[in-house]
Amino acid sequence: MQHFISVHDVTDIDALVQEGLRHKQSPFAFEHLGKHKTIGLLFFNQSLRTRLSTQRAAQNLGMNTMALNVGQDSWGLELEEGVVMDGNNAEHVKEAAAVMGKYCDILAVRAFAGLQDREKDYAETVMTQFKKYAGVPIVNLESATRHPLQSLADCITIEEYKTTARPKVVLTWAPHFKALPQAVANSFCEWMNRRDVEFVVTHPEGYELSPDYVGNAKVIYNQDEAFAGADFIYAKNWSSYQNYGQVLTRDASWMITKQKMELTNNGKFMHCLPVRRNMKVTDEVLDSEQSIVIEQAGNRVWSAQAVLKRILEGLG
Amino acid sequence: MQHFISVHDVTDIDALVQEGLRHKQSPFAFEHLGKHKTIGLLFFNQSLRTRLSTQRAAQNLGMNTMALNVGQDSWGLELEEGVVMDGNNAEHVKEAAAVMGKYCDILAVRAFAGLQDREKDYAETVMTQFKKYAGVPIVNLESATRHPLQSLADCITIEEYKTTARPKVVLTWAPHFKALPQAVANSFCEWMNRRDVEFVVTHPEGYELSPDYVGNAKVIYNQDEAFAGADFIYAKNWSSYQNYGQVLTRDASWMITKQKMELTNNGKFMHCLPVRRNMKVTDEVLDSEQSIVIEQAGNRVWSAQAVLKRILEGLG
Amino acid sequence: MQHFISVHDVTDIDALVQEGLRHKQSPFAFEHLGKHKTIGLLFFNQSLRTRLSTQRAAQNLGMNTMALNVGQDSWGLELEEGVVMDGNNAEHVKEAAAVMGKYCDILAVRAFAGLQDREKDYAETVMTQFKKYAGVPIVNLESATRHPLQSLADCITIEEYKTTARPKVVLTWAPHFKALPQAVANSFCEWMNRRDVEFVVTHPEGYELSPDYVGNAKVIYNQDEAFAGADFIYAKNWSSYQNYGQVLTRDASWMITKQKMELTNNGKFMHCLPVRRNMKVTDEVLDSEQSIVIEQAGNRVWSAQAVLKRILEGLG
Repeated sequence: MQHFISVHDVTDIDALVQEGLRHKQSPFAFEHLGKHKTIGLLFFNQSLRTRLSTQRAAQNLGMNTMALNVGQDSWGLELEEGVVMDGNNAEHVKEAAAVMGKYCDILAVRAFAGLQDREKDYAETVMTQFKKYAGVPIVNLESATRHPLQSLADCITIEEYKTTARPKVVLTWAPHFKALPQAVANSFCEWMNRRDVEFVVTHPEGYELSPDYVGNAKVIYNQDEAFAGADFIYAKNWSSYQNYGQVLTRDASWMITKQKMELTNNGKFMHCLPVRRNMKVTDEVLDSEQSIVIEQAGNRVWSAQAVLKRILEGLG
Repeated sequence: MQHFISVHDVTDIDALVQEGLRHKQSPFAFEHLGKHKTIGLLFFNQSLRTRLSTQRAAQNLGMNTMALNVGQDSWGLELEEGVVMDGNNAEHVKEAAAVMGKYCDILAVRAFAGLQDREKDYAETVMTQFKKYAGVPIVNLESATRHPLQSLADCITIEEYKTTARPKVVLTWAPHFKALPQAVANSFCEWMNRRDVEFVVTHPEGYELSPDYVGNAKVIYNQDEAFAGADFIYAKNWSSYQNYGQVLTRDASWMITKQKMELTNNGKFMHCLPVRRNMKVTDEVLDSEQSIVIEQAGNRVWSAQAVLKRILEGLG
Repeated sequence: MQHFISVHDVTDIDALVQEGLRHKQSPFAFEHLGKHKTIGLLFFNQSLRTRLSTQRAAQNLGMNTMALNVGQDSWGLELEEGVVMDGNNAEHVKEAAAVMGKYCDILAVRAFAGLQDREKDYAETVMTQFKKYAGVPIVNLESATRHPLQSLADCITIEEYKTTARPKVVLTWAPHFKALPQAVANSFCEWMNRRDVEFVVTHPEGYELSPDYVGNAKVIYNQDEAFAGADFIYAKNWSSYQNYGQVLTRDASWMITKQKMELTNNGKFMHCLPVRRNMKVTDEVLDSEQSIVIEQAGNRVWSAQAVLKRILEGLG
């Protein structure tokens, strides 16, 4: 493994899930691997789980860590090629990526979608530029269209909690008053499509995700129907892909409630967090035995550790 | 010891003071204790001494450290239970604390008083929520009503500098143009009330601290009278507890001057820092031999190290 | 070596350059030196290269690191002596420096010129105060008038890339729309004046640097003439020293282009970065084989490591 930008960088998801579970059992078994290695964590956006879990994973592997808030600790970065740089951004990503690649053995980057220009967001400029110019492995800490460390943690969590060989997994849209990216939903679809699960996506009309990500998932517009017999309910809000970045509805009937969860097969409730209580999901669900959001978030360490371990092995 | 939120978490202050002094002599004697352990430092507010001294203490004990500015590096946190989260705060402390407890072996939290709502501040919501939900030991890095790592450092400093078995220690209010919390003053009272000292508190009328903290201290409204024969003058500003969060006076006659210090028994001058020169205390006093504010701040490392060592021992 | 504030703190530049090159060959040869030592990195201003390369150098030497954004993570610092502190800055540098000196074995400080008051900037108050009060070695991470870690990296880079015993090195002003400090240019002059090079400085009239820094450099106002036969072109913008902090011209004819580079002796292009593309220098030059800006930035690690190693040896 070199870069970890999306599921396409993974040849065997099962093996990676098992790798994560092994790290969970023995967090320090590979701490020699990271000796003398430094990971740089670059944040164009806020982060809690990703920032802390990736640092912890790196520490467990014996690495040093350096975190940088781009445009705050350092200069704003210009991403467009060929421009006259007379604006706010003092440094071009060409230089920034190449230079940081000189200081770090691995670079991990978070850069959300702007939600203004779909083509631009889906071109994944930041990840592409870092891959092109950094000269070291790049790890995606959530990009405009994907959040693969989250998705791997989700796979690990489902593996741990499934009670049947081929569980029914439902990704459901949930209401939110702000426009949020499609990254987590896209990425979850990509990974679930490659897992041995019955995968269903449910959302109001107009919230269809890009077909490139939805793939073979069964799309159902009736949330109750979708929930029937589900083993896992994965809730997430996203803004419209078609009317790009728009909030089309805040329909509270899509909020996950105890009543909805009762339609499931005693299903587990999952969410990538942060979650707005009593808007996307009720306290009652989040505070119930069915919610596994904390264990899911905890698995972010083992997800990151599995990925970093593979990359470190590749660095030799 | 599990949590370290206040003096009530300490069974033997003397032993903890001696523990601190031993770390000062041999900073690295227990560096094996922190191996494979990570402390997360969460800041809802600015910090210099606390941020750096606690990190240094953790490093001396062989721990890894991760610092996070809440609401800046990460999302703003909702503290109220049962609310519909449609405001600025994207994440509830219930999730945030529990998740960070998955990534860190110890969590240390700074969250100042808002000074708008006394009942709310004195309920210590942040500390209470973190204790309740994090699942790991919580260290108070200054909360709405207390600053126990400072108070322990103060005890260590008085132990080092006292020249008599039972020194006279005076906590004096000093003028400031902004409303400041009562936390340092409260905490100092709590700890001094449990030390073998003659403890006096002096302040203008209207600046009475909560009786729960003042305890058996002798309160004198005449600063000169209070200073007479003092071995230690501990200066601090705080806003009114009764007229909660109000600045009732900026009376410059309460500023600590050389003339005032001459009323003491060649007393030492202490302050938790930061201190506004020539408003709370004159340059002349701060730059004199009597000032021990730098040594006092230096002791913050040994205070934190004593506490972290005890917690690490409890983690097994 | 104790402090590293300017070239005046270095007795033998050649030896320090060779030290840097040795670290580049064997980054971890001296990792025992930094054991149990912590460096504090204080930023009054933004940073990318300096922040990351200095941390990496410290890690390579086995040190722990703590970074602090002054006035953001911590309080704003008052630098003037004798004032009544009733303004925005809550803490005096006297206390801050002394206290941080208690927590760190080495302090490294970045504080740019304000460009409002020449006398004040050139008095180097921040560095002077930290040297005076911290009680530990101070490393200059770019001050009002100098950037010596950059200059040492520049020396290392020229040493690596020179193809003749005594290369011609040209420092050229380049256009920028904002007022920038003279620090990098000043510092480069100071170091080049002590190297075995033919040193030329070129800039429009009115952009003369302080004679204290320019020293024996040959100043040529015609950029083309200056470039003739050059082995190294070092581009940098700075604002006027005489009309202090003013932008006198943005004359685009001073931008470094392929045509200008063709006047050189197949010269290498250098810049401290960040660089605004197509304003100071064209894409064509930056993306050409002649540009060594990335290697130059990479050498910031070895420059910092050479300096920190010397300081650590002095700490005993």
